[in-house]
Amino acid sequence: MKVKVPTLLLDEKKCRASIRRMAEKAKNNGVEFQPHFKTHQSISVGEWYKEEGVTSITVSSLGMAGYFANAGWQKINVAFPVNVNQIDQINELAAKVQLTVLLDSIETVRIIDGQLTSTIQVYIEIDSGDGRSGVGFNEADKVFELLTAIERSSYLTTRGFYTHAGHTYRAASKQGILEVATPALENFKSLKRLDNGMADLEFCWGDTPSCSVFNDFEGLDTIGPGNFVFYDLMQCNIGSCTSGQVAVMMAVPVVAKYPERNEIIVYAGAVHLSKDNITLDGKTIYGRVYNLIDNAWEEYRSPAYVKKLSQEHGVVVMNEKEADNLNIGDVIGIMPVHSCLAAQCVGAYRTLEGKLLDHYAQKKHD
Amino acid sequence: MKVKVPTLLLDEKKCRASIRRMAEKAKNNGVEFQPHFKTHQSISVGEWYKEEGVTSITVSSLGMAGYFANAGWQKINVAFPVNVNQIDQINELAAKVQLTVLLDSIETVRIIDGQLTSTIQVYIEIDSGDGRSGVGFNEADKVFELLTAIERSSYLTTRGFYTHAGHTYRAASKQGILEVATPALENFKSLKRLDNGMADLEFCWGDTPSCSVFNDFEGLDTIGPGNFVFYDLMQCNIGSCTSGQVAVMMAVPVVAKYPERNEIIVYAGAVHLSKDNITLDGKTIYGRVYNLIDNAWEEYRSPAYVKKLSQEHGVVVMNEKEADNLNIGDVIGIMPVHSCLAAQCVGAYRTLEGKLLDHYAQKKHD
Repeated sequence: MKVKVPTLLLDEKKCRASIRRMAEKAKNNGVEFQPHFKTHQSISVGEWYKEEGVTSITVSSLGMAGYFANAGWQKINVAFPVNVNQIDQINELAAKVQLTVLLDSIETVRIIDGQLTSTIQVYIEIDSGDGRSGVGFNEADKVFELLTAIERSSYLTTRGFYTHAGHTYRAASKQGILEVATPALENFKSLKRLDNGMADLEFCWGDTPSCSVFNDFEGLDTIGPGNFVFYDLMQCNIGSCTSGQVAVMMAVPVVAKYPERNEIIVYAGAVHLSKDNITLDGKTIYGRVYNLIDNAWEEYRSPAYVKKLSQEHGVVVMNEKEADNLNIGDVIGIMPVHSCLAAQCVGAYRTLEGKLLDHYAQKKHD
Repeated sequence: MKVKVPTLLLDEKKCRASIRRMAEKAKNNGVEFQPHFKTHQSISVGEWYKEEGVTSITVSSLGMAGYFANAGWQKINVAFPVNVNQIDQINELAAKVQLTVLLDSIETVRIIDGQLTSTIQVYIEIDSGDGRSGVGFNEADKVFELLTAIERSSYLTTRGFYTHAGHTYRAASKQGILEVATPALENFKSLKRLDNGMADLEFCWGDTPSCSVFNDFEGLDTIGPGNFVFYDLMQCNIGSCTSGQVAVMMAVPVVAKYPERNEIIVYAGAVHLSKDNITLDGKTIYGRVYNLIDNAWEEYRSPAYVKKLSQEHGVVVMNEKEADNLNIGDVIGIMPVHSCLAAQCVGAYRTLEGKLLDHYAQKKHD
């Protein structure tokens, strides 16, 4: 395969299989599937979800919400604490689509209440143990206070509770994910035990590691994972997937060779792969290297990886013999550590069949 | 100051002062100043260099070269190992401007020789100790071989030698930079001692840490640093600059507050700041937090920093009292760890006077 510049290959079959698997898992459990689109950010990939019956989506910014609203999506959840400085965009979107936002403070309710011009739905964000954002799952008073404030506001209606158990990303095995996610789910569901009619409110849960390994979503109404659509090296490492399920691969040209030190330089830097990394066997790595063959990729016999990234350079460590077999201009594959960021960096996809697919980042600056 | 979304502020005065300082240092040392434009990637910022007499520039990709060629730059050095898969773009550029490329292998010379349609100049890249790319400074045989191959080719002419002593980035003080850069410079200049007329070839040297702290460039012909135009937290940490010299600051809205745990959440994630980080006092940090005041920024009384980045969330650790003084919707400043990547991520600048300046990433996807 030849590419001129770093190009994100997308295996449509693997990607569609992951979408189907998650959609079926949701269906079998009687929960709504409201996938997060921040990973692919692509209208074309979004169409594959429509084929699985998805009608409601999650995004991580108002700009991204606008991108998908223009593509016909009518129910959009912006899973980010309301940015009150973007009230104009919120009003504009809310006039067009059924908009849900996240918030966790009375202060935010007070600021936006007087400025809204259309009805918007609210998820109260709950911190089920991750410690990033949300009202603590055990802060019932704050939750009541928020419910009351939303009730009193003119344009806000409570849809339910949302949590992202992001601490599953610290796991290193399937079992590890379960050990983090199971108590987090219990924490989240504990809000149901409060005798105040909250049981009628929607409970939405979403992170790729737990949604990948849980087989049972009892007590939940909605799941909203995102990364599973592509997976990546980080998810393999966490235990969410196998490397065979990863649907994206950065195809990059070899530009320099140093077989004597088992290294080559590829055209793929921090501006293509992002600086996200994982630690494997005590080494920091920025991607795993694959051999690209017709319409597929395969592992090298000796594991090869990206050990360093500059702005445009990637330093690949690989077996001397395999490095020697490569010519300048040959194209190899790099499985990104974090597919969301790699996709954001390059802003486009090429399927293995050669179709070019859109990405929001491509439009952002138009 | 109010901004709706993460916005990269640029202090034009600080930026112009850094450009002037480096231009004067080059002039006083009798070396040519061929700045690297990969940090700012801005035609507008490029104009400030023209005012200091700069006529020859460095970029890190052929696309970026095209961007600046369209803005009237006539002498462009692409400081990246020739990507032979982009031969068409090389030919297109070489027909328009005086193009220089980097290479370090006979294989590359052989591949492009038959495909070039215009003359291009070549810097042989030398590895002066960093170990990323380039012919080893002590591999005289390889250098001779390359010089001969370039001599024999139809469209290539040797301009000289180029080195990037990137290992200065591992320093942690001015003294530390000197301890790395001084022997690297000696390594590089050792090529002059070979009795073969190489002394007539240009010696080009460029990395921000060494160019910031060296006062003497004896033996060099050209310097090409880039990051000094903005500097950043990493350069402060390395010892290249003071925090007062840093010319960029990401202005970001506060979206959630957790004073009880000394944290706030801002709208600024990995897609705005990049995941580049530094370790300070044993902590990994993704940016330092500043108080934004009219047309300037100042440190908080207690140091505040970004401890974690998700795709769009930034988790800021700050003194409880200062966090409590902030309201949802207030805008604070984050000094990026790596200004090149932060600028690439947001693809635009706003000067403290409110002017919007271009960035190549803004154009890339048009």
